[in-house]
Amino acid sequence: MRVGVLTGGGDCPGLNAVIRAVVRKGIKDYGYEFVGFRDGWRGPLDGDTMPLDISAVRGILPRGGTILGSSRTNLMKVEGGVEKVKQTMSELGVDALVAIGGEDTLGVATQLTEQGVNVVGVPKTIDNDLNATDYTFGFDTAVNIATEAIDRLHTTAESHHRALVVEVMGRHAGWIALHSGMAAGANVILIPERPFDIDEVVAHVESRFQTNYAPIVVVAEGAHPKEGQMQLQTGERDSFGHVRLGGIGQRLAEELEQRTGKESRSVVLGHVQRGGTPSAFDRVLATRLGVNAIEAVQAGAFGQMVALQGTEIVRVNLSAATDKLKTVPEERYAEAEVFFG
Amino acid sequence: MRVGVLTGGGDCPGLNAVIRAVVRKGIKDYGYEFVGFRDGWRGPLDGDTMPLDISAVRGILPRGGTILGSSRTNLMKVEGGVEKVKQTMSELGVDALVAIGGEDTLGVATQLTEQGVNVVGVPKTIDNDLNATDYTFGFDTAVNIATEAIDRLHTTAESHHRALVVEVMGRHAGWIALHSGMAAGANVILIPERPFDIDEVVAHVESRFQTNYAPIVVVAEGAHPKEGQMQLQTGERDSFGHVRLGGIGQRLAEELEQRTGKESRSVVLGHVQRGGTPSAFDRVLATRLGVNAIEAVQAGAFGQMVALQGTEIVRVNLSAATDKLKTVPEERYAEAEVFFG
Amino acid sequence: MRVGVLTGGGDCPGLNAVIRAVVRKGIKDYGYEFVGFRDGWRGPLDGDTMPLDISAVRGILPRGGTILGSSRTNLMKVEGGVEKVKQTMSELGVDALVAIGGEDTLGVATQLTEQGVNVVGVPKTIDNDLNATDYTFGFDTAVNIATEAIDRLHTTAESHHRALVVEVMGRHAGWIALHSGMAAGANVILIPERPFDIDEVVAHVESRFQTNYAPIVVVAEGAHPKEGQMQLQTGERDSFGHVRLGGIGQRLAEELEQRTGKESRSVVLGHVQRGGTPSAFDRVLATRLGVNAIEAVQAGAFGQMVALQGTEIVRVNLSAATDKLKTVPEERYAEAEVFFG
Amino acid sequence: MRVGVLTGGGDCPGLNAVIRAVVRKGIKDYGYEFVGFRDGWRGPLDGDTMPLDISAVRGILPRGGTILGSSRTNLMKVEGGVEKVKQTMSELGVDALVAIGGEDTLGVATQLTEQGVNVVGVPKTIDNDLNATDYTFGFDTAVNIATEAIDRLHTTAESHHRALVVEVMGRHAGWIALHSGMAAGANVILIPERPFDIDEVVAHVESRFQTNYAPIVVVAEGAHPKEGQMQLQTGERDSFGHVRLGGIGQRLAEELEQRTGKESRSVVLGHVQRGGTPSAFDRVLATRLGVNAIEAVQAGAFGQMVALQGTEIVRVNLSAATDKLKTVPEERYAEAEVFFG
Repeated sequence: MRVGVLTGGGDCPGLNAVIRAVVRKGIKDYGYEFVGFRDGWRGPLDGDTMPLDISAVRGILPRGGTILGSSRTNLMKVEGGVEKVKQTMSELGVDALVAIGGEDTLGVATQLTEQGVNVVGVPKTIDNDLNATDYTFGFDTAVNIATEAIDRLHTTAESHHRALVVEVMGRHAGWIALHSGMAAGANVILIPERPFDIDEVVAHVESRFQTNYAPIVVVAEGAHPKEGQMQLQTGERDSFGHVRLGGIGQRLAEELEQRTGKESRSVVLGHVQRGGTPSAFDRVLATRLGVNAIEAVQAGAFGQMVALQGTEIVRVNLSAATDKLKTVPEERYAEAEVFFG
Repeated sequence: MRVGVLTGGGDCPGLNAVIRAVVRKGIKDYGYEFVGFRDGWRGPLDGDTMPLDISAVRGILPRGGTILGSSRTNLMKVEGGVEKVKQTMSELGVDALVAIGGEDTLGVATQLTEQGVNVVGVPKTIDNDLNATDYTFGFDTAVNIATEAIDRLHTTAESHHRALVVEVMGRHAGWIALHSGMAAGANVILIPERPFDIDEVVAHVESRFQTNYAPIVVVAEGAHPKEGQMQLQTGERDSFGHVRLGGIGQRLAEELEQRTGKESRSVVLGHVQRGGTPSAFDRVLATRLGVNAIEAVQAGAFGQMVALQGTEIVRVNLSAATDKLKTVPEERYAEAEVFFG
Repeated sequence: MRVGVLTGGGDCPGLNAVIRAVVRKGIKDYGYEFVGFRDGWRGPLDGDTMPLDISAVRGILPRGGTILGSSRTNLMKVEGGVEKVKQTMSELGVDALVAIGGEDTLGVATQLTEQGVNVVGVPKTIDNDLNATDYTFGFDTAVNIATEAIDRLHTTAESHHRALVVEVMGRHAGWIALHSGMAAGANVILIPERPFDIDEVVAHVESRFQTNYAPIVVVAEGAHPKEGQMQLQTGERDSFGHVRLGGIGQRLAEELEQRTGKESRSVVLGHVQRGGTPSAFDRVLATRLGVNAIEAVQAGAFGQMVALQGTEIVRVNLSAATDKLKTVPEERYAEAEVFFG
Repeated sequence: MRVGVLTGGGDCPGLNAVIRAVVRKGIKDYGYEFVGFRDGWRGPLDGDTMPLDISAVRGILPRGGTILGSSRTNLMKVEGGVEKVKQTMSELGVDALVAIGGEDTLGVATQLTEQGVNVVGVPKTIDNDLNATDYTFGFDTAVNIATEAIDRLHTTAESHHRALVVEVMGRHAGWIALHSGMAAGANVILIPERPFDIDEVVAHVESRFQTNYAPIVVVAEGAHPKEGQMQLQTGERDSFGHVRLGGIGQRLAEELEQRTGKESRSVVLGHVQRGGTPSAFDRVLATRLGVNAIEAVQAGAFGQMVALQGTEIVRVNLSAATDKLKTVPEERYAEAEVFFG
């Protein structure tokens, strides 16, 4: 059996751990051969490969990123893309693919399956918003990094009697904000699932200033105020068409300063959250997913992905992961609200 | 409602996070009053209390240990112990107890329940070997600490072409060894559930010495060889006149050195694994358990404990947690074995 | 002897360690009493104090920030400020001050000395740009935090074949950029002392893209291009009069993307660099400075500050610290340039 | 110019950073070629080499250990050793050596110099006890690791009202104990330079038990009691039937438990202190030493080593580093004693 491996979408701590586990398991238990495709779907499209044997995966377990490279190339938007992939696989004698990626990558994998390609998926998203799996690797690392950063910011906020707004990742789901905010004792946590009332936020911040402790607001990048509140004058666009600044973190800090009369500052954690060595949790999860992806290949369970449910790694249909976003439910947010203000 | 809180058994990162969540949730949502009992069951036995209000729990979320203190006092071995506890509760007007602890503490809680005392349990064990909950807080922190230590030891082992044996916690269950060993790329993992064959261990170590990488053996403190193997003759002296030590880690390093002819060293991580600030995972878990323990009190769900199952906090009978030890199942160990040698 | 203590200016890991050392040394060896002044010079101005005894400083050694609070209140700009301070000291029976702060705080201390007030200074700046001391506490912590962040960013940059620009603190001196950039293997380091040539930066970045590794540019917030290059269109101002965005990090990322045709991203580390627990180096330095500040008080060495020179803590005139900025010398930058490109 | 590089003695975080700096500086500025000798002096003795070019040193800056391997092979104890080294150098066309190591390695380098071999030394010892340099790389990393461990142990000690004894490295000099003990707020620090009085230690521990905080004793592995005190009878069994161990940490914990009647535990940090990624301080120091070692080679400054004095890298005679041990002076220990008890 010859198996191709690729990683697509944004990078995530634990990708290398999956790759290593896939390769070691496949070689040791079933004598597979592996082909590494570079940069997500671009690899099989262009026939761009790298050797993927025991020596290629040595020492990569604790390393962030992906030795295969990644890209956001969407196969389905490439004319004749599926045919090219089939052709590459045929030319290289590749019988099956292990595709490690998020919504987009797994969406492509679903469609490839329908067209007769043997694919097993491994779910990946730093934001933890893929359905059908309790957690995705990379998320725990991101939460730890954000928590340590917020721990540090507490002392600055208190020494200067300032409010600090920390913007974390999470465009569509607030998992990182929820977990890091709960872990670090934030006074308010704002998530995309629930448009916030700026008056309530101000009230929490002001109530916090009454104590010896200073307010920390954790806000997901995709959070936004209730309609009509806190106009987001996004301003000009840069040469790449990106809106300049206007990040919710900075915008909120300005609003808080204006309304409370107290100094407020913002910090945008950004890419630091998704790089570097994975936490132990993520290394174990990624390794188990890799081992079980090979068991799925060996069982011919194509069109499926491996997922964490409780403490078990199970198989679910690829479509189950992508048919809806896993967002923060009301009752989880309510647990966090106990500590607001 | 007046609620007593106590922490029993060995300390664990996350205890303070539970205490804080219990107190803040109880006061904010239900107007409870709290009494802190000092040093586990010794507190209600001796009537030794401390104030437990919002200000007592400020800033303790990220701190290891327990502000209530702990002890291994076993109420059931004290003549008239149960009566004394009832009397203390009655004198202080305490209606219910939240008991945070492991097998022993929860065992006592079970028996108190049978004698009409209102108790809700919160499971705690660094070793992760309590039944009926997917994870216990403190475990993730311990695994992270052990993993970081093993990461560090890799480079020393490789530079000196030595085998390194790392002894981690786990008297009866090998969870910390399994997770930290998988996370840090150990070449062999030895756990109490499965007596090891010293010849196999030596074979793995020798095979590893063939590569550029040096062998790391992770061994739980309670692991032991198959019967008849590797006599543990304590008391004898080695060639340097040092007394041969008892711990399995050191004993194994000596055996490996003798049988492979390569330098071998051991490190015993010890108490470092159970102290200090909790990981984000443990802070979130501990906080959620605390919040839900109060919901259980409010619901009158006495004789129950809160537990993690998947991503949900559920209630289970106290006895479910203590009736058997949660050990590492065969199939989990098999996943780790893929990477041996 | 009754001694007042205050901390002024931006907070810095190690402030609490100095305060603890001052108090413990003074009480243990000389039987001093202490008065804590709140929020820098605002404390003695307003007579705002807090108790400062052994129990007040318990457990603060590893904590970032300052239990005394801080502010940027400049005594010299307050009408009759010096007289008010003298009056407060007289009313409280305070014989001498230990002033812990940077250029501004020590500048005020210098002038107070000239007006007969007994002051000993302890130098503090996260930027390490105070003269007459080899290092200031807080700097090592900031460099470690920045280095860890850049370590993490490497793997993201490589996985996505992107350039990453990391903006670190340093308005007037590039010490944090120089040290964290050297420590983390940056491909280019840009500092305020040396206006950069954007063509050279682009050349280094492009040369790096030839290898398997991706370029990381570390830029101090105060760095700027040579005159006429890379117009900084700062754009509109926000409601506080701050220029919106226009940070050099983001601006540079845009320029690199445009000129190299490769994706470029920026991260601004911001306040995370100055908060949280100090590194061991900073804790030792801060503790030694505190101990020696008391020896200076006891010796009547007013108008002086304690400073690190080699491995010794020495005394220098307060004015020596503030008469010029300690910037990065040419030969130190040349050492770093070896690794550019 | 063809330059051989070797690393001798115990491994130390920062060795790879020196190697990388040496190679990149030599190639970039002077067009040198390099030969890597494996495992310290064993390499040139046996003619065992590895390629050492830009690609060999890629990515090694943040990695602990040494890619060249190390050993304790003492050239001077090998019959005809010097001649063999000369012969290897001649055969390989190696003009000069950069020898990175401690007392032994630099002692050999000194003697080689006297016999006409071109050697430049780079000082290395985790213990910081080499003369003529303010700090050696690896020391700061070790102190940070020990400090973090002690931070963690505080909470366990307090929760259980126990004394904890932490044994750190330092056979002949107490630098790691002094710095980590000061940084982590130890109640007693015991170093080899100063035989301790067990009665004083007990008094400090008992005084600490009076407060809410529990005693932490930091002891260097080479520390020992005053003559006649605390007999170290190895071999006997304690009340639990365990063989009493030899290490000073465990022995001291037993003594404290016996004399104070309070539970006492010991932790031996061991090899964890010397492995893994270097701190930022050590990366910068190691990099600067490497760059300046090449400047010394280029200048023909053989028989010298590079050293840190204040913030400068200087050259000193190799013999200056090895003629006496740099121990902790009385006045540094006195600073730490302020915080005892």
